[in-house]
Amino acid sequence: MAKIKNVYFFGNGKAEGDASMRNELGGKGANLAEMTNLGIPVPPGFTISTEICAFYAKSKKYPVGLDKEVLAVLQKLEKTMGKKLGDPDDPLLVSVRSGAPVSLPGMMDTILNLGINDKSVKGLAARTGNTRFAWDAYRRFIQMYGDVVMLVPYEEFEGAINDLKKKRGVELDTDLTARDLEELVGEYKKIVKKTTGKDFPQQPMDQLWGAINAVFGSWMNERAIKYRQLNDIRNIKGTAVNVQSMVFGNFGEDSGTGVCFSRDPSTGENEFYGEYLMNAQGEDVVAGIRTPEKISTLAKRNKKIYDQLVGIKNKLEKHFRDMQDMEFTVQQGKLFILQTRNGKRTGAAAVKCAVDMVAEKLIDKETAVQRVSPALLDQLLHPMIDLKVLKTAKSMTRGLNASPGAACGKIVFSANDAEEWQARGEKVLLVRKDTSPEDIGGMVASQGILTSTGGMTSHAAVVARGMGTPCVAGAKEAIVQGHTLFIGTKKFSEGDWITIDGSTGEVYEGKLPLVTPDISKDMDTFLKWCDDIRASAKRGSLKGFEVRTNADQPEDAKRAFAFGAQGVGLCRTEHMFFDKDKLIHFRAMIVADTLEERKAALKEILPLQQKDFFGIFKAMEGRPVTIRLLDPPLHEFVPHTLEETQELAEFLKVSVESLQPKIDRLHEQNPMLGHRGCRLAVTYPEIYNMQVEAIALAAAECISKKIPVQPEIMIPIVITARELKLLRPNAEAILKRVFDKAGVKLHVKIGTMIEVPRAAIRSGHIARYADFFSFGTNDLTQMTFAFSRDDVASFLPAYLQQNVLDVDPFKSIDEEGVGWLISYATQQGRAVNPDLKVGICGEHGGDPLTIDFCYRAGLSYVSCSPFRVPLARLAAAQAVLNNKPKADKKSTVKKPAAKKPAIKKAADKKTAKKTTVKKSAAKKLVTKKAVVKKTAKSIKPAVKKAVKKPAAKNASPAKREPKAKK
Amino acid sequence: MAKIKNVYFFGNGKAEGDASMRNELGGKGANLAEMTNLGIPVPPGFTISTEICAFYAKSKKYPVGLDKEVLAVLQKLEKTMGKKLGDPDDPLLVSVRSGAPVSLPGMMDTILNLGINDKSVKGLAARTGNTRFAWDAYRRFIQMYGDVVMLVPYEEFEGAINDLKKKRGVELDTDLTARDLEELVGEYKKIVKKTTGKDFPQQPMDQLWGAINAVFGSWMNERAIKYRQLNDIRNIKGTAVNVQSMVFGNFGEDSGTGVCFSRDPSTGENEFYGEYLMNAQGEDVVAGIRTPEKISTLAKRNKKIYDQLVGIKNKLEKHFRDMQDMEFTVQQGKLFILQTRNGKRTGAAAVKCAVDMVAEKLIDKETAVQRVSPALLDQLLHPMIDLKVLKTAKSMTRGLNASPGAACGKIVFSANDAEEWQARGEKVLLVRKDTSPEDIGGMVASQGILTSTGGMTSHAAVVARGMGTPCVAGAKEAIVQGHTLFIGTKKFSEGDWITIDGSTGEVYEGKLPLVTPDISKDMDTFLKWCDDIRASAKRGSLKGFEVRTNADQPEDAKRAFAFGAQGVGLCRTEHMFFDKDKLIHFRAMIVADTLEERKAALKEILPLQQKDFFGIFKAMEGRPVTIRLLDPPLHEFVPHTLEETQELAEFLKVSVESLQPKIDRLHEQNPMLGHRGCRLAVTYPEIYNMQVEAIALAAAECISKKIPVQPEIMIPIVITARELKLLRPNAEAILKRVFDKAGVKLHVKIGTMIEVPRAAIRSGHIARYADFFSFGTNDLTQMTFAFSRDDVASFLPAYLQQNVLDVDPFKSIDEEGVGWLISYATQQGRAVNPDLKVGICGEHGGDPLTIDFCYRAGLSYVSCSPFRVPLARLAAAQAVLNNKPKADKKSTVKKPAAKKPAIKKAADKKTAKKTTVKKSAAKKLVTKKAVVKKTAKSIKPAVKKAVKKPAAKNASPAKREPKAKK
Repeated sequence: MAKIKNVYFFGNGKAEGDASMRNELGGKGANLAEMTNLGIPVPPGFTISTEICAFYAKSKKYPVGLDKEVLAVLQKLEKTMGKKLGDPDDPLLVSVRSGAPVSLPGMMDTILNLGINDKSVKGLAARTGNTRFAWDAYRRFIQMYGDVVMLVPYEEFEGAINDLKKKRGVELDTDLTARDLEELVGEYKKIVKKTTGKDFPQQPMDQLWGAINAVFGSWMNERAIKYRQLNDIRNIKGTAVNVQSMVFGNFGEDSGTGVCFSRDPSTGENEFYGEYLMNAQGEDVVAGIRTPEKISTLAKRNKKIYDQLVGIKNKLEKHFRDMQDMEFTVQQGKLFILQTRNGKRTGAAAVKCAVDMVAEKLIDKETAVQRVSPALLDQLLHPMIDLKVLKTAKSMTRGLNASPGAACGKIVFSANDAEEWQARGEKVLLVRKDTSPEDIGGMVASQGILTSTGGMTSHAAVVARGMGTPCVAGAKEAIVQGHTLFIGTKKFSEGDWITIDGSTGEVYEGKLPLVTPDISKDMDTFLKWCDDIRASAKRGSLKGFEVRTNADQPEDAKRAFAFGAQGVGLCRTEHMFFDKDKLIHFRAMIVADTLEERKAALKEILPLQQKDFFGIFKAMEGRPVTIRLLDPPLHEFVPHTLEETQELAEFLKVSVESLQPKIDRLHEQNPMLGHRGCRLAVTYPEIYNMQVEAIALAAAECISKKIPVQPEIMIPIVITARELKLLRPNAEAILKRVFDKAGVKLHVKIGTMIEVPRAAIRSGHIARYADFFSFGTNDLTQMTFAFSRDDVASFLPAYLQQNVLDVDPFKSIDEEGVGWLISYATQQGRAVNPDLKVGICGEHGGDPLTIDFCYRAGLSYVSCSPFRVPLARLAAAQAVLNNKPKADKKSTVKKPAAKKPAIKKAADKKTAKKTTVKKSAAKKLVTKKAVVKKTAKSIKPAVKKAVKKPAAKNASPAKREPKAKK
Repeated sequence: MAKIKNVYFFGNGKAEGDASMRNELGGKGANLAEMTNLGIPVPPGFTISTEICAFYAKSKKYPVGLDKEVLAVLQKLEKTMGKKLGDPDDPLLVSVRSGAPVSLPGMMDTILNLGINDKSVKGLAARTGNTRFAWDAYRRFIQMYGDVVMLVPYEEFEGAINDLKKKRGVELDTDLTARDLEELVGEYKKIVKKTTGKDFPQQPMDQLWGAINAVFGSWMNERAIKYRQLNDIRNIKGTAVNVQSMVFGNFGEDSGTGVCFSRDPSTGENEFYGEYLMNAQGEDVVAGIRTPEKISTLAKRNKKIYDQLVGIKNKLEKHFRDMQDMEFTVQQGKLFILQTRNGKRTGAAAVKCAVDMVAEKLIDKETAVQRVSPALLDQLLHPMIDLKVLKTAKSMTRGLNASPGAACGKIVFSANDAEEWQARGEKVLLVRKDTSPEDIGGMVASQGILTSTGGMTSHAAVVARGMGTPCVAGAKEAIVQGHTLFIGTKKFSEGDWITIDGSTGEVYEGKLPLVTPDISKDMDTFLKWCDDIRASAKRGSLKGFEVRTNADQPEDAKRAFAFGAQGVGLCRTEHMFFDKDKLIHFRAMIVADTLEERKAALKEILPLQQKDFFGIFKAMEGRPVTIRLLDPPLHEFVPHTLEETQELAEFLKVSVESLQPKIDRLHEQNPMLGHRGCRLAVTYPEIYNMQVEAIALAAAECISKKIPVQPEIMIPIVITARELKLLRPNAEAILKRVFDKAGVKLHVKIGTMIEVPRAAIRSGHIARYADFFSFGTNDLTQMTFAFSRDDVASFLPAYLQQNVLDVDPFKSIDEEGVGWLISYATQQGRAVNPDLKVGICGEHGGDPLTIDFCYRAGLSYVSCSPFRVPLARLAAAQAVLNNKPKADKKSTVKKPAAKKPAIKKAADKKTAKKTTVKKSAAKKLVTKKAVVKKTAKSIKPAVKKAVKKPAAKNASPAKREPKAKK
């Protein structure tokens, strides 16, 4: 085996790696190398590659010769810096950081000041002329290293420093003197010895390898493994380790540290954005004692440094062709860039950046479309409190506007309760003192989150933003005591409604009406680019990967139309029956004994359905409207209470006693598998006949009023072609009769819903009688898994928790099972009928992962709820781009990080969705209001959606199955 | 297009067709030709081929030139007979009969005496010297032709003859004089004119073409189409038409007619069997006025004819190598054979014939195995009334022993009621005055049939024998009035239990205990041949197509073992819990709040399960026993009544009030898709752990007692490989612990049940963690169709009735959907693990059609209820033989009818299952007791099972789908 390079040096304006080596060097390491090559001042250092992590994870040891390789590069670093690690006189100090190809929380993060020991601390003091600085650095190093590498409980160190402060009668760490800190170092070393039985390592190389081991070891810790499993992140070798020489921002007024963004990450405005503190280290900033200053003030304070920083930011943004998030430190008037990466941003900022950068010719439209994650876009469409109400609504208290959007829900006080309540259909709002990674499930389940402590970078805030869930954080006047929330004189118990506005931080009593904002001009431009991309997609013999909407009422249709829906993919006629004035007739129909009685009841319903259909046709202005004929089990409409039964009995002028047996007869053991959908039409043809007549009459009405109309009739719960063979001519005859009578001409497509496994299996035959297929993925998932959606709550959580399933198959399509059937059915259907239009109309239709799958499966359209239409337009366009054959992918902008692994793209998208907050000395300061409680414990972010990418794209179902013989 | 021969002559010892041309000439025509060629005296005639039927069915006309072809052959016939059709002096009379390649009821049957008209009747009278005979022949011809061809209501003719008899003051038709009959002919012609507006045709060629049209037309009549659909008989071109010169058995004492079998069709004994009447026509016999004589008496009466007949029967049996059923007529001392075909027989006769013919070297063992239909074999194993009870039981009345076996059920009085009651799980016994073809559905649904009128050849008797359903016919003392049955002084209402013994004809009050007889020596021999054939089948890398049994109790296992089961394919552990002493503990377990409570309850169940397992292991003597861990939804075990809840509350020492909510919590919306099977093990591992421990302990107990044992553990409701990955190690650890402790060594296979569509789809992955697959076809059918077995009654009948589905998928496997999944899963599983044992354990496992499918799908075994094991052994052997590649099929006996169409074999099997009774002059006389009510209406037989044969054998699922582009 040829010798492989494992350790990559960067420094002196030249690096052995570059940004394209993200796989080997991790994101951080690759960008440090790239910056070095660009001539940007980066503290020199080296990166140990991810290959070593993979090796170490497997064998718990390193490849032969690694130690020598590290030593050689270290010596190069020492030579560059003119210092030696652990030199008693002038020690080189380094930081050790992890950095994987994709951002992966859950691993060991950072060790700073490595290289100090009992001797070199004195040399450091002498060289810097700052004894207190030296001892404080040593103290911090022991604390960090002891915690992370030697697994000393963090509280032990906290206890010791607090004891000392008490003893000295001081409040702040900064009030401790150099001597105090020296004493504390002694105390810390004792703690290490006591809890680990080992002395704190004095040999710098021992320190270094201890830190490297800890980084690589953390790749396989439980939380990191769990995170990767949950997010289906595979095919990543491991993390890299970055060893970098330390620079310090606390060397006086000509030193400082800060975080900056090349554009405003909140709005996307193209203005330099950031904060800094002079004479400070990241940690000091995080401690929240001093208020960071706006980056613009740096221009006055130190024009040279400011100009240099602006130059670098411009260079980096242009180079990476994306908004950059940079960390910098100024040491004694010298600027160092410690990190750059693509900046996290809000949905609004994402869209604005994308649109602006296209205008600036920095990126092309396709790149712009790929830049915005659908979840971020969704944020922008989050409901807001109705302005009419808001004018008069009085906020009870105000917290931090931690994650935009308004939400209302019944309050619960634990993540478990949130999950349980949500599982039974409640809308909940999670109220907590603060949240922790264990609460993720409950946070996902909640409409919104309210915390009484914690700031903009608190766990709750970070996670909520990542998920696009509205959050008000740090509402100090909201006091949580057990299962009660006190706000001022008000007291709220579990189940009480409150409303929060995550965009303003206000908290309101009760359930305020929410509205959804319109689409901005930038977003409109952006979504039109998406539409252009989708329009070009080839689906069977047809063109365009469309976005339709599920709409049962004219208002839904209107909203979806405004949001850009290209048609109605699913209009559920049964929802129309739940109107009180229709329901009574429908109930009369289902308990009817004779055909005549049934027909009489149906006659009453017909004009009501016709009116609804007309409204929807009109709202869609001639775009296709797929109307699903009656689908659910009859017994869903059965009176549930005695009152309802009495009402029906009165209506029918019969006794309750005579009615009750008929109602009881409609009860089914497994209604999901019962008498429903087209089965009703086989037994009672008059039901569908009435519905088809209502559709035909509504369509004829449109035509007579010169309203363009394009109805499509969908027959549900089909299991065999013969059902369509029987029912289709019935429908056609009625259409003909009505149209002939009205003197209009209109072709109405008749298709079927594929929602039973047998229909998918027999799709090749069914396609002979269907003009289109629409996958009802809710039911198809139920049947394919034998999962009753109403009953899974008792075991699905255990399945997810124990990783028996990766994702809730009702949220994102199960590609391996349900998806397999969809691919198979699409292929079979198209083989018979290449013009077959194939769509999806289950609730999965608004899920970006599912949309990507649907594209790969060859579907013609997705249909989703009106509010998710913009998201779906974007996700669908991204699906088109993500799945372009390599050779086909035209990108006018050559991206440096082109050699990403297969998993890369998906993972990138995910990282764009969330905001990660890292504990570290060099802390980024997103906002002045940042209230950081924990100084060293890392806060783990989470994402709402698991990222999943099948290994094989566009493969036929059969091809994807394993072929290997044992 | 080359000219194709459409009309085939037979006569003068030479025929243009032969027995191999069954496809073209139909069964009857082919055998008439074959007999003619063999030199057997057959009245000359000709056959119009099935091609013409196909042509006629499509275009409602005949190919150009057919008329000339018919005319030419008719002239040849006239020349042969020395008579001309319609000759006023000496007319040729012919019969016109249908005859398809397979026996297909529902079509027009027979026209006799064709060729008589107003003139030739006189010539006939003169030539025969029997004026009465001539007018009677004319009268019968008009009646038959009028009814069948001209669609004159049959009652019209009946009315006229009855009026005349009244007028003449006579009782019997035979009391009418020649003059009376002449008058009647006039009356009949008036009736024809009145009802049809047309004169009765006088031109013999018009008569002939009318009859031919009627035969071909009847191929497409509703009943015939329905029958073919129901029985999935496709690929048959149509029926042939046989035109044959008439012979008469009523020309005096040297004439006669009869039916004979080459062996006894009841017992299979190799002795000449049959009945005849001298100076009689078939119709006279059917009228039941004279008692037919046993064939043996013919030896004394007319040794020459008798010897000739014996010679012919020997020749035909040897030629066709099967027991023959022949119709003969002696006209003035000359013997004619009118038909021969393979004789229908009872199950006992079928087995005896098969075994004897092998001993006689007439056929080989494979042919013997193919000769016996599984349904017939099943008859022999039908329950009988327990002898202990029978000794003291007093029969209420006795009817004809029309179909063997005993049955008990709740009585119902209509076929509809029978179907409805059966659909809701009742065992019903259909009681009717008589039955008709419309009653088929109800007859299928019934345990047994009792009629008060009708004989051994009545519709009820014929159909019941065909279906293997016990039947007592013609129990005259059983009087049916509306919905009440009177027997002597006793009165029975709908729902009352009675028991019938179809083997003796006795009828008993109440529900008598039934037992099942043992296997006879002949059957044992026969089934061992079946076993040999099955043992050679190759399945994946394994050998043998096995038959296992479903057994939940040691007694079941013992019975199945005696019946030849090669193992237990399904031992349902949950059935064990329904024992009262176990159920209470199980209920305690499911309502337990804590792990400790659950474990305590499970601890009580463990020894009880262990005992059951030990019993089953012991009964199976070391053969594999597949134990399925707990499968059904927990709520099935929930107390259903207040009493049960109280009992459980007392047992648990808690209040009913505190218990009820826990019970309510277990309720599920769709329990079939709920918390069940291995889902319970994911949430509550302790349940399966207990079961595995009980299995391990029982196995260890066997080993310690030197009882061979081979347990297999089956994990149900699997949807993903990860369930097995999680649960399998648990089970293995427990097995190891128990076996280590007991100091025994035993390998226990762990496999899974494929019963959820997703499991079938993911089978390639699941196979990596499973030692075997077993298809749970009940649940797989439920999920694949979205058919809840408990709820289908509301729509499945409509589906079957409207031909939306061909068969109830819970009876025979749905090959297109469920079967497709089975084939796919088997292929995928074997691709990963060629040693994978794959079986079926749903209730389909005992269905011959499903067994044939399972063989084609590559399964290793079928598992069925103990009583069906012998049937399954036979059906499995037949599957092996039926699906042998052509070149592979070794048959030492060359069968003349080798060129059968694909459908032929299946259809043949079907015909073997039933007994067809044809109205016709030459009536076969199966028994002296024959009481035939109807003289001219045909009685349509039916079969219990639809016969279905997929077009492509052994094709992969994908290959079977259509590939054609539009």
